[in-house]
Amino acid sequence: MTPKIAHFLSSSSPATPCLVLDLDRVAENYAALQTAFPRARIFYALKANPARPILERLVALGASFDAASWEEIELCLAAGATPDRVSFGNTIKKAASIRRARAAGIDLFVFDSIEELEKIAGNAPGARVFCRLVVATDGAAFPLARKFGTGTDMALELMQRARELGLVPYGLSFHAGSQQTAPDAHEAAIGQVAMLFDDLEKSGIKLGMINMGGGFPTRYHEEIPPIAHFGQRIGHALDYHFGNDMPEIFVEPGRFLVGDAAVVESEVVLVSHRSKTDPVRWVYLDIGRFGGLSETEGEGTKYRITTPHDGGADGPVIIAGPTCDSADTLYEYTSVHMPLALRAGDRVVIHATGAYVTTYATTGFNGFKPLDEHYL
Amino acid sequence: MTPKIAHFLSSSSPATPCLVLDLDRVAENYAALQTAFPRARIFYALKANPARPILERLVALGASFDAASWEEIELCLAAGATPDRVSFGNTIKKAASIRRARAAGIDLFVFDSIEELEKIAGNAPGARVFCRLVVATDGAAFPLARKFGTGTDMALELMQRARELGLVPYGLSFHAGSQQTAPDAHEAAIGQVAMLFDDLEKSGIKLGMINMGGGFPTRYHEEIPPIAHFGQRIGHALDYHFGNDMPEIFVEPGRFLVGDAAVVESEVVLVSHRSKTDPVRWVYLDIGRFGGLSETEGEGTKYRITTPHDGGADGPVIIAGPTCDSADTLYEYTSVHMPLALRAGDRVVIHATGAYVTTYATTGFNGFKPLDEHYL
Repeated sequence: MTPKIAHFLSSSSPATPCLVLDLDRVAENYAALQTAFPRARIFYALKANPARPILERLVALGASFDAASWEEIELCLAAGATPDRVSFGNTIKKAASIRRARAAGIDLFVFDSIEELEKIAGNAPGARVFCRLVVATDGAAFPLARKFGTGTDMALELMQRARELGLVPYGLSFHAGSQQTAPDAHEAAIGQVAMLFDDLEKSGIKLGMINMGGGFPTRYHEEIPPIAHFGQRIGHALDYHFGNDMPEIFVEPGRFLVGDAAVVESEVVLVSHRSKTDPVRWVYLDIGRFGGLSETEGEGTKYRITTPHDGGADGPVIIAGPTCDSADTLYEYTSVHMPLALRAGDRVVIHATGAYVTTYATTGFNGFKPLDEHYL
Repeated sequence: MTPKIAHFLSSSSPATPCLVLDLDRVAENYAALQTAFPRARIFYALKANPARPILERLVALGASFDAASWEEIELCLAAGATPDRVSFGNTIKKAASIRRARAAGIDLFVFDSIEELEKIAGNAPGARVFCRLVVATDGAAFPLARKFGTGTDMALELMQRARELGLVPYGLSFHAGSQQTAPDAHEAAIGQVAMLFDDLEKSGIKLGMINMGGGFPTRYHEEIPPIAHFGQRIGHALDYHFGNDMPEIFVEPGRFLVGDAAVVESEVVLVSHRSKTDPVRWVYLDIGRFGGLSETEGEGTKYRITTPHDGGADGPVIIAGPTCDSADTLYEYTSVHMPLALRAGDRVVIHATGAYVTTYATTGFNGFKPLDEHYL
């Protein structure tokens, strides 16, 4: 938690649940990423958090944007991004969305199948396209392999087909998985991409860009390697494979830029004992899986939670959300301890919740409104 | 799909994704439930779908309401329900919500722990309370056991404590699990409840109500027993245990009343082959897990999906939503076949989507707005 967030929480006691994000931390993360990848162009994957203040700050910093839909493209443009700084980065696009994007001046579209490629050709004639490859994503908390990407053989044909369709075969992308904690997957993928660059050049197609996706980790409970470590290893792999013929390098961070820039403040609704003999207490918060903490599904993301009583005697707890839905249980099999002094009405802080929280909130399951958002 | 829904879809081609619900079907389900349980008072669990037209129709039919939050109570009152027809049915309530509910005239509160009981006593003095028991939920698609309810020993003490705290110990509740396809769990629970009624009477507490929760099933793919079957078996168990000293009987259906009253219409965004050799196509719809089809988590709820090409040659598919999130895959391990003629732009119908869809939709993950809703 940054000093600015701490001051806001203590001075204004906002209604809970709420998210409080420090825009300066986003700027610091942006600078750290640019330092680690000096030759990369940074596209913010706004699906992580599309709040206007974040977009405006990143526009001012010179960032580009990776949009998942026409609606996200509109958000970028409204925040001041020029169309040349927006990539339509979803391999699944409605024809109408492609047309709207093209009419708005977007000139960068991803695909991973012949069907999508033909749809782009029909609705954004002449556009620059890049093909998403499927790569190994070992080491990632959220691998993305099965739903997206195509193999290198298919990619070769698709890029040739793109040219036949009057599109500009512009580059290749891959995604090493979200919350990826090691650069090995990137290194392996860069080798694959380099071979494909070579093969395509032999068929007369000179590509100009590698999009390495996002997935750079933010810190939850476990230590993660510094971003400089990724930059060094990945930079070395790029030099090795591309030397003096370096293409443009794109990265698409979402979580990395905003994840640790925010906290969620939540009120404890109930602390209960389920029987006289069971030492485990149930702690119910006013935010749960349906209020935005969706990434706790399968107890995947283990958020750090602090309380006003930390340091005192503690004991094991199960943590759940406020809805009448048993799936709305955050941590039941994960070992979590909380102070014995914790009571209903206490406020707790859930750390590193800047990414993939506000947008996952439901419209109002059980009547609970989406969490408030404060951008400082 | 009812004729009214079919006519609406064919005549107005609404923007997709959208939910279309037939209020007459809700009324029919209400009547069928009342016939199956002639002595029960029906509380609609509005978390399943809190749309105003549904609430107004049910108010007109004489229904009562099971609300999960103060916000849901407000919805009931705004739709014309009097406070005596609203139960605050969430075991996890903020103190402020209890106070507001009490001030609005609500006189029925659930609890399952001493902590919640004391919170009710402090914020709704003198209110009627009922204690939720944990019971076996074998046979349910969504068991609810671990998060809610207390054992019979504890319940006995809690009801005595309720009296000491100046509350009215009014009844006992249980929930046999959501989408429960057999009445065995209800029968066993009624036996448990009867013994507890006896034990409490010995200590001078005469209870007046059994709340059997909801969980009655709606039809997705598999055949389900008719509601009359539940009514008969459960009625018999009540007669056996309570005879001429029958307490008030409450039921709290959500899914049963609205589940099969609506369909979702969705547009196919992309049908793609991932390689030349794999016969499995990926079918991407414009609604997925984050657009409201949350109950497909773990491929739990298997919705029936129909297409304009049904009857033609088909083949295996994987079905996914439109977002850049691999968790947004609906059916990958479930065997689903769809027509080979299916193309991007086709409209498909997802059946029995009246319950737990609109409220699970996210506020806008990937920029996609929540689905439109039409109530006929």
